[in-house]
Amino acid sequence: MAQVRNKQVFLKNYVTGFPKESDMEIVEGSITLKVPEGSSDVVLLKNLYLSCDPFMRILMTEDTPANLGLLYSPGSSTVRNNSGPVTQRPPLYGTLLSLLLVKILLLGLLLPLLGFGVSKVIESGHENYKKGMPGMTAYGGFFEVGCPKKGERVFVSAASGAVGQLVGQFAKLTDCYVVGSAGSQEKVDILKNKLGFDEAFNYKEESDLDAALKRYFPEGIDIYFENVGGKTLDAVLLNMRSNGRIPLCGMISQYNLTQQEGVTNLTHLIYKEIRMEGFVVFKFYHLYPKFLEFVLPHIREGKIAYVEDIVEGLESGPEALIGLFSGQNFGKKIVAISRE
Amino acid sequence: MAQVRNKQVFLKNYVTGFPKESDMEIVEGSITLKVPEGSSDVVLLKNLYLSCDPFMRILMTEDTPANLGLLYSPGSSTVRNNSGPVTQRPPLYGTLLSLLLVKILLLGLLLPLLGFGVSKVIESGHENYKKGMPGMTAYGGFFEVGCPKKGERVFVSAASGAVGQLVGQFAKLTDCYVVGSAGSQEKVDILKNKLGFDEAFNYKEESDLDAALKRYFPEGIDIYFENVGGKTLDAVLLNMRSNGRIPLCGMISQYNLTQQEGVTNLTHLIYKEIRMEGFVVFKFYHLYPKFLEFVLPHIREGKIAYVEDIVEGLESGPEALIGLFSGQNFGKKIVAISRE
Repeated sequence: MAQVRNKQVFLKNYVTGFPKESDMEIVEGSITLKVPEGSSDVVLLKNLYLSCDPFMRILMTEDTPANLGLLYSPGSSTVRNNSGPVTQRPPLYGTLLSLLLVKILLLGLLLPLLGFGVSKVIESGHENYKKGMPGMTAYGGFFEVGCPKKGERVFVSAASGAVGQLVGQFAKLTDCYVVGSAGSQEKVDILKNKLGFDEAFNYKEESDLDAALKRYFPEGIDIYFENVGGKTLDAVLLNMRSNGRIPLCGMISQYNLTQQEGVTNLTHLIYKEIRMEGFVVFKFYHLYPKFLEFVLPHIREGKIAYVEDIVEGLESGPEALIGLFSGQNFGKKIVAISRE
Repeated sequence: MAQVRNKQVFLKNYVTGFPKESDMEIVEGSITLKVPEGSSDVVLLKNLYLSCDPFMRILMTEDTPANLGLLYSPGSSTVRNNSGPVTQRPPLYGTLLSLLLVKILLLGLLLPLLGFGVSKVIESGHENYKKGMPGMTAYGGFFEVGCPKKGERVFVSAASGAVGQLVGQFAKLTDCYVVGSAGSQEKVDILKNKLGFDEAFNYKEESDLDAALKRYFPEGIDIYFENVGGKTLDAVLLNMRSNGRIPLCGMISQYNLTQQEGVTNLTHLIYKEIRMEGFVVFKFYHLYPKFLEFVLPHIREGKIAYVEDIVEGLESGPEALIGLFSGQNFGKKIVAISRE
């Protein structure tokens, strides 16, 4: 049986505050290129691209507020996040996914980092585990949790990020008015000129977020797609319309804080009868066929653009991941492992 | 046409912090006891009982976070909150209601206080506007927003209050495990011994709310019926289970604060995929027949108890209302105007 080299990014220490490269370690091991005999639920994959996502930070915290078990409930997995071939149990909702859920294996304090990726199926014991594509987070969060109606007013924070850029475009395809916030003028320009947002602004240049939102939403916000949390959420609450919806996708501004910012305007949720709902993408996996039906025609017609920010080699992974938290990425941050 | 005396409680000044009796004024006027000719949508009522509710505090604040217009959207009304007969437009969802929605009339700074009550119909141009009963807030919030399932774990704050005591009993009737918090040992005893809560505790005696909740909910909370906000909500978020629901009925701990307490644990909503949803009772008025169908058999069988705290005379209104915010009421606080 062929043994191959298998590099992995491990977490050496639980992280407090912003993660540092020295919190991570690249370890080289080996793996056997063979699915065990009679394993109908095991797939052998070669990771081609690995994704850097803000939620990975949450899992680096000791006593993380997330019960890790919950994250896996819809689709348990035994893969390790590495550059070589691995074995994987398909999610219970396994459809056409290649968004890999990689489980943290507790090896003392050495934890391989949990993350998504795109992989090539080398050998499979499971017929559903063949191919896939990203975007489910934006799709499920916007359509299933946000429940948009034509003409509604949509605000997206971290709008040039991996999820935000798609939410904005999905909103335009639904005939909504959409405004995004981002952290640089360059990002703002691309949101307006390339990704079709009606308006965009640089939150770092707004001393009064409430005033900025009132400028772009004089009649208020129907849907706030939440990626950042903290002060932004507080300002948004002041500007929500009655019966608004707030899909909670992430709160990246809070992940590295040892003391989280308090959100003080929650009473607005009551009078305005607002629904604020958290979700994790696994919830939407059963919608994958519906997602493809929606998104593929638009991709074919060139109506959906997608901005990626790719770095080369597993060794670049720690730096790429850390850069997320200071907004250094534009769009989806990806580590290319193998361009075959 | 008969002219009768008509006393009203007016708000003299917008309120900052806790309301004082001196912020209110009792004004005597007169009213004509006649529905205008041909007015098919006007009802003449005599108020028998007036209700003191925490939400009334919100409407006493200048630049209240609530857009007052929103509160009236389902059922516009022209009644004034007073002790004598008044005229009223029935809500759009008018069914069998006698929960009166009373509109603030802007007379300079003199505002009659908005509130609910029980009234006698003296003359009516509208066939649906004849009688009614309370409980819709608890019913709609618990069943429609909370979506309880048999065996789930329910926590109710302000559990001895007007709404909380019914939510707890509805939860028991749904075969849930239910724990309530209240502000005195006497209230705790009544919750457990009279109202059938599985457990109850005095939040004023718990220095660590998180620890208290872990004691009563070692496996976590499925539904938190929110009446208080602030620190309690923050502690609850640490103890919610995956896919939990938080119906937001009120946040009484925050209404008198000029600087609201920050809620810091909102990221739990994401990982645990929790839905937190505000509501105002008007949203549920169309469910009134369903509510009666549920509640009447239980009332007939003596399975639902209701604790009221009644004071006499419109003149007692301001004191009764203010007492809500220091927890002086037990159960539903009512001002009896006329016991006919």
